[in-house]
Amino acid sequence: MKLLEDRIRKDGVVKEGNVLKVDSFLNHQMDVPFFYEMGKEFKRLFEGTPINKILTIEASGIGIAIIAGLHLNVPVVFAKKSQSSNISDQVYSTVIHSYTHNCDNNVVVSKQYLHADDHVLIIDDFLANGCALEGLIDLVHQANGTVEGIGIAVEKGFQEGGDRLRAKGYRVESLAIVDSMDAKTGEIVFRSSEA
Amino acid sequence: MKLLEDRIRKDGVVKEGNVLKVDSFLNHQMDVPFFYEMGKEFKRLFEGTPINKILTIEASGIGIAIIAGLHLNVPVVFAKKSQSSNISDQVYSTVIHSYTHNCDNNVVVSKQYLHADDHVLIIDDFLANGCALEGLIDLVHQANGTVEGIGIAVEKGFQEGGDRLRAKGYRVESLAIVDSMDAKTGEIVFRSSEA
Repeated sequence: MKLLEDRIRKDGVVKEGNVLKVDSFLNHQMDVPFFYEMGKEFKRLFEGTPINKILTIEASGIGIAIIAGLHLNVPVVFAKKSQSSNISDQVYSTVIHSYTHNCDNNVVVSKQYLHADDHVLIIDDFLANGCALEGLIDLVHQANGTVEGIGIAVEKGFQEGGDRLRAKGYRVESLAIVDSMDAKTGEIVFRSSEA
Repeated sequence: MKLLEDRIRKDGVVKEGNVLKVDSFLNHQMDVPFFYEMGKEFKRLFEGTPINKILTIEASGIGIAIIAGLHLNVPVVFAKKSQSSNISDQVYSTVIHSYTHNCDNNVVVSKQYLHADDHVLIIDDFLANGCALEGLIDLVHQANGTVEGIGIAVEKGFQEGGDRLRAKGYRVESLAIVDSMDAKTGEIVFRSSEA
């Protein structure tokens, strides 16, 4: 999505350690009219798929998921990071490793809100190593639901998550895929969407 | 807002200990078309106020804040709960006590996204004791910004937070105010919006 690539070039900040900061418009301050355009693109990409629900994870996935839900006219469920290791039998739970914070999080969804007849679009703001998405896929599978696709704002194409998920057969649509970036020059190379 | 009162009567579950569960449509599964109507009501209530930004707190405030931002055409900033007590000088920080989880959370906003010329609408899903809102107000004041108002989906009118904030001069608009509820009968009494 050229609009997102242009915005990342304009407002993204590349830092050492393969960090791409986009918190001025994507995951701390959220540019809502811009989100509206991203949601419209998710609708275009996934229209015709029998999606009846979006699943995301707190916190930074929620904004984009809500706007995608508005365009696709479906409810959004967000998985919660649980402080407690004492997980109730009322929830599906999985463990997601966070490389950012170097810790494991228990992540839960109430069994009331994921079912065998759900056709789920998973939405998140970032895809890098894919751990968060694999956790969300696991939650859908525990409910015997179907993952119809995965919608991402920014994929770090130089990390393995996206390609591993595609190799497993999931339809992953990332609105921008960063193939390389350089903290010294600030240069960002996007994967051509025609490739 | 009658639409929200009706929905709480239909889908809210009253539990012992003054707990009102509305996670089937408000703060775990989110009914997006319904959120659209709540956002429209926030626009009606706050139209004409010089709001240029919405501030909320992760995670369950984000969905409503995004939809309100869409209607009011302003960006949304969400305050983050910080795991670390080691707060950088790049952020405004405050401590919010959570009665639900019986702990104190450090909550931060980057100084880049709150300024002295900001006229802020604070949005959250719930208002009970008001601790979260007082933390958000503190963050706006640290930036020398102006709090134009506070928009809430569900206020527990039998707890003191809303009245205390109004007594301090803040304009608090809650789409539904629960004045009492009974876990045995499930009965919920709303404050008349004409009162």
